[in-house]
Amino acid sequence: MNTVQVSLDLAGIFVFALSGALVGIRKDLDVLGVLVLAGVTGLGGGILRDVLIGAVPPASLGDWRYLVVPAVAGVVAFRFHPRLARIERHINVFDALGLGLFCVTGTAKAMLYGLGPVPSALLGMLTSIGGGVLRDLLAGRTPLVLKQEVYALPALAGATVVAVTWELGLYRSWVAIVAAVLCITLRLLAIRFRWDAPKANGLVR
Amino acid sequence: MNTVQVSLDLAGIFVFALSGALVGIRKDLDVLGVLVLAGVTGLGGGILRDVLIGAVPPASLGDWRYLVVPAVAGVVAFRFHPRLARIERHINVFDALGLGLFCVTGTAKAMLYGLGPVPSALLGMLTSIGGGVLRDLLAGRTPLVLKQEVYALPALAGATVVAVTWELGLYRSWVAIVAAVLCITLRLLAIRFRWDAPKANGLVR
Amino acid sequence: MNTVQVSLDLAGIFVFALSGALVGIRKDLDVLGVLVLAGVTGLGGGILRDVLIGAVPPASLGDWRYLVVPAVAGVVAFRFHPRLARIERHINVFDALGLGLFCVTGTAKAMLYGLGPVPSALLGMLTSIGGGVLRDLLAGRTPLVLKQEVYALPALAGATVVAVTWELGLYRSWVAIVAAVLCITLRLLAIRFRWDAPKANGLVR
Repeated sequence: MNTVQVSLDLAGIFVFALSGALVGIRKDLDVLGVLVLAGVTGLGGGILRDVLIGAVPPASLGDWRYLVVPAVAGVVAFRFHPRLARIERHINVFDALGLGLFCVTGTAKAMLYGLGPVPSALLGMLTSIGGGVLRDLLAGRTPLVLKQEVYALPALAGATVVAVTWELGLYRSWVAIVAAVLCITLRLLAIRFRWDAPKANGLVR
Repeated sequence: MNTVQVSLDLAGIFVFALSGALVGIRKDLDVLGVLVLAGVTGLGGGILRDVLIGAVPPASLGDWRYLVVPAVAGVVAFRFHPRLARIERHINVFDALGLGLFCVTGTAKAMLYGLGPVPSALLGMLTSIGGGVLRDLLAGRTPLVLKQEVYALPALAGATVVAVTWELGLYRSWVAIVAAVLCITLRLLAIRFRWDAPKANGLVR
Repeated sequence: MNTVQVSLDLAGIFVFALSGALVGIRKDLDVLGVLVLAGVTGLGGGILRDVLIGAVPPASLGDWRYLVVPAVAGVVAFRFHPRLARIERHINVFDALGLGLFCVTGTAKAMLYGLGPVPSALLGMLTSIGGGVLRDLLAGRTPLVLKQEVYALPALAGATVVAVTWELGLYRSWVAIVAAVLCITLRLLAIRFRWDAPKANGLVR
């Protein structure tokens, strides 16, 4: 189980860091700015979670794999990034993959630290949206989570699957993967079909 | 005393969450974005305080009342929000109420955790301005605390009343309410009469 | 050694707080906004570090010197700030001094708390860039660290000197000062000669 958890975590860091690096490239940042944005996006959500559950210093600061992965992602994006016209779409897809991987690992770590299923699911959601929010704040973009498409809901759905199965003693490796796939699928469908949640103005006027 | 503390806390979360939800509605966000902004604004200041005093995981993540209140506030604002023209004023009033309630509960919790009166008053101020600052950062607004009207001072005044009376052993339920009313009154007067603190340029040129 | 550490720390808080106050003056904030920005810039990096290494409540909240210094810096900047035309340059110079002082004290404190040299150097870099990032986020500026000149690299260089000498048992007062001077010199040279790190677009197109 631990190997699955760490693998999903590193995969999530990699894809989130890719999305952060692409935002940096789109913002015309230099290579150091791109690496900083890759690191913040890849590690930010997990660090927020670790601070909130009292797991300090955060695991990612003391484990070389957690530090190398976003650096590699930053260099890869910097060197091989696609033409600018396609960047926005790639950002959203890598962001969706990170969302799915982190809602699972974030929730599982919170359960492991003895939190109940409701706070664990919320922390899982925070883990998966936190890195992207920090990325967008630093880059001066409106955070994706506040924009029109369905964003936080897929993360909450995946986190809920993990929290409920863990609470019932049914959490297995394949459940982790199902939960991540559920979140990623919902998010990609929301992007593809431009699902919009209702707005206040539409209701009232 | 505990009931007063929790009641003031929940009331503060409710009004701050209303202000956050209204900012979200004004920014034309969908229902999920509005709920996220309501939650961040209502719970953000207290979570910042809890992390800084080492009270992790933050109480609000493990207590269902602290999670339901901002959700209710978000739904209420989403469904019954006033016409857009009046929103800005309502945001400022709800924000002032939250400021007053949180400067009291934030300071009291820090004293309870054994911090001295000066850091406790500062943490009380941080608790009361933190949620609004996070709200404004996420929504891409200049934080109110940095704008022209008197904002942080009322929070510091209320927090100081709590810290001093607690240190002297005179802190009672009615003191908590007096301190909150003091902060709210100062803030509302500052809004009403457009009190401006001096600016550097005026002094020097 | 402790006196050197505290002196460097207070000096770093003072110059960073000056840079924060000048940003506030440039943004036409009132005296309270200027003081808030001075406090956040001077204390923010250290508080981030303390939260991440589990040193809560952060030392700066309980030590009156750490609270008086940014207040004095804010008042000094507010009263004696130079003409607006020169402000930008002064912000960058004070920011460079803060960068150099904090990369040393931040790394040393992390080593003192038992972290390894790699996470300690990263936390040192975070301590020195954190306050400025918070300052720029609050003031609605693009964080300097993401802009074109070499910014995070000098901080990482200074932090690495401290981490390596500490690990080898060679860390002395004069090493601390050499590391700070190294970082400050690199940063000032980068500003003076407009050193730019490579950008992705230049490589690919």
